[in-house]
Amino acid sequence: MMLSAHSAALLHVLFVVAIVAEAMTAAVSAGRRSMDWVGVCLLGCVTALGGGSARDILLGHYPLTWVQNPYYLLITVAAAFTTILTARLMHHLRRLFLFLDAVGLVVFTVIGCNVAMEMGLPLVVVAASGLITGCVGGVLRDILCNDIPLLFQSELYATVSMVTAAIYVGGLRAEMGHDLIMGIAMVAGLTLRLLALRFSWGMPKFVYTRDEH
Amino acid sequence: MMLSAHSAALLHVLFVVAIVAEAMTAAVSAGRRSMDWVGVCLLGCVTALGGGSARDILLGHYPLTWVQNPYYLLITVAAAFTTILTARLMHHLRRLFLFLDAVGLVVFTVIGCNVAMEMGLPLVVVAASGLITGCVGGVLRDILCNDIPLLFQSELYATVSMVTAAIYVGGLRAEMGHDLIMGIAMVAGLTLRLLALRFSWGMPKFVYTRDEH
Amino acid sequence: MMLSAHSAALLHVLFVVAIVAEAMTAAVSAGRRSMDWVGVCLLGCVTALGGGSARDILLGHYPLTWVQNPYYLLITVAAAFTTILTARLMHHLRRLFLFLDAVGLVVFTVIGCNVAMEMGLPLVVVAASGLITGCVGGVLRDILCNDIPLLFQSELYATVSMVTAAIYVGGLRAEMGHDLIMGIAMVAGLTLRLLALRFSWGMPKFVYTRDEH
Repeated sequence: MMLSAHSAALLHVLFVVAIVAEAMTAAVSAGRRSMDWVGVCLLGCVTALGGGSARDILLGHYPLTWVQNPYYLLITVAAAFTTILTARLMHHLRRLFLFLDAVGLVVFTVIGCNVAMEMGLPLVVVAASGLITGCVGGVLRDILCNDIPLLFQSELYATVSMVTAAIYVGGLRAEMGHDLIMGIAMVAGLTLRLLALRFSWGMPKFVYTRDEH
Repeated sequence: MMLSAHSAALLHVLFVVAIVAEAMTAAVSAGRRSMDWVGVCLLGCVTALGGGSARDILLGHYPLTWVQNPYYLLITVAAAFTTILTARLMHHLRRLFLFLDAVGLVVFTVIGCNVAMEMGLPLVVVAASGLITGCVGGVLRDILCNDIPLLFQSELYATVSMVTAAIYVGGLRAEMGHDLIMGIAMVAGLTLRLLALRFSWGMPKFVYTRDEH
Repeated sequence: MMLSAHSAALLHVLFVVAIVAEAMTAAVSAGRRSMDWVGVCLLGCVTALGGGSARDILLGHYPLTWVQNPYYLLITVAAAFTTILTARLMHHLRRLFLFLDAVGLVVFTVIGCNVAMEMGLPLVVVAASGLITGCVGGVLRDILCNDIPLLFQSELYATVSMVTAAIYVGGLRAEMGHDLIMGIAMVAGLTLRLLALRFSWGMPKFVYTRDEH
């Protein structure tokens, strides 16, 4: 059930790519609201590291990732600040960032599942841990920007995280190789997300318009 | 000072009723904002289990309820999803849900007090724990829906929780039977809430309109 | 590296002044939104004690300050309630409160740094702990009032906290006397904040106006 050293290293690299991508995406959101430079960097940190922090707090999994490895904090600040300096280029890199954001979603999900599994938690909690790790950062970003979180409204974001977690957990239960099933879960989740973006797929909405109470 | 087995079982049943009621109320809120199905279910979970989770995190009381008993997660998701399917009926059940929501408030409050008492915390913290357990779920729902939390604006909601906690803690201090005082506290809190709803009672408001700084 | 008993006592007094000031400032914010009396008191507690609570939860530093010393809860409730009763005077005390709020910012920052240092955490985390302690209370206040947090938009607030933390941590690294460097860091931070208020200094803003994605 262990990850090979090769896969663990790959996951670590993808994690760094993901926090950079999330911090830069958050910085662009901050720029849309004309936040100051410090606000941009803080929003980048909260968005990139908030999902993992929420997971660790909810599961009682201490110390938190960025407390143990503070250079992750520095990376996200640097990524957010780079976004300010290179804002003119961001426009041209939009598709790249949507892709990296999708990579981040599935990578965070798989890492979240792993943390809960290593704590020996039940499968429902393992999947919830993946979902929280993948999605809470973006929810915090939207709350701090005073929006209704996108998560609740669009684009299969949470659904992608759930599908990724379900494939990963299901495959491990079926005793498939850890590296193999991790790869399959991530590719499947990534494909679903990119198809959802391309074809504007969304979950059905629940519209309730009866009188207020 | 112990609850009888009978009362503990009753409290457990009321807890399940309460999380179902809170999840369904949250789902209706989600529907008013046209969230997608996944958003509806997530908002149901956060609202129903958020108060207890906030209490456990603030008091360092691990593992959290839903981590230990993940079927509570499944119950809230099922309740939220049922709300989507039965939305046409919800309108007719409005009074029932206001009643069950009030039951949830006092049940959560009593459970929150019990958790803090079992940890041997001071009485002020016991009452705060009841208030947090009773009220934070609704605050999170309102933040995620991008409203000013109702808690801060209306209908004696927090007051009911405080009164319930005060009667409960006071009665236990006076060495009344645990089952008896729990019953009295819950009935008193429930009555106050229903009277407040019926007669639109509210706390006085603090209106400050001097120039902005 | 230890604080003298004299400095520790001074820091404690300043802490109480700071939570009173933060609770009263929050109460005024609550009054601008016509919250009810209970909401005003709760918002006061969350604003005054939220920064320290967030720090303790993120660092796994239990029990939280107000759980161990519940009289801090009572102090903040009393301060918020006093604000309601003396609202007519508040207008005339605006400058005093801006000053006390600035004192609170640097005091919270120094206390947050101390907590992380006593836990033996790395310097980046020590500075982050100071920033979180100083700033999160105000962020929670703004979220609960449904505003974009001021922190992200103005007046060097977070910057003052960072500068204070940097001077403090840097001085201790350079083996300066603990009392001395604490005093220097706090005076420097306070001066910067007051100058920023006086001359409307702000960080440059990042304005990103390309098409939405």
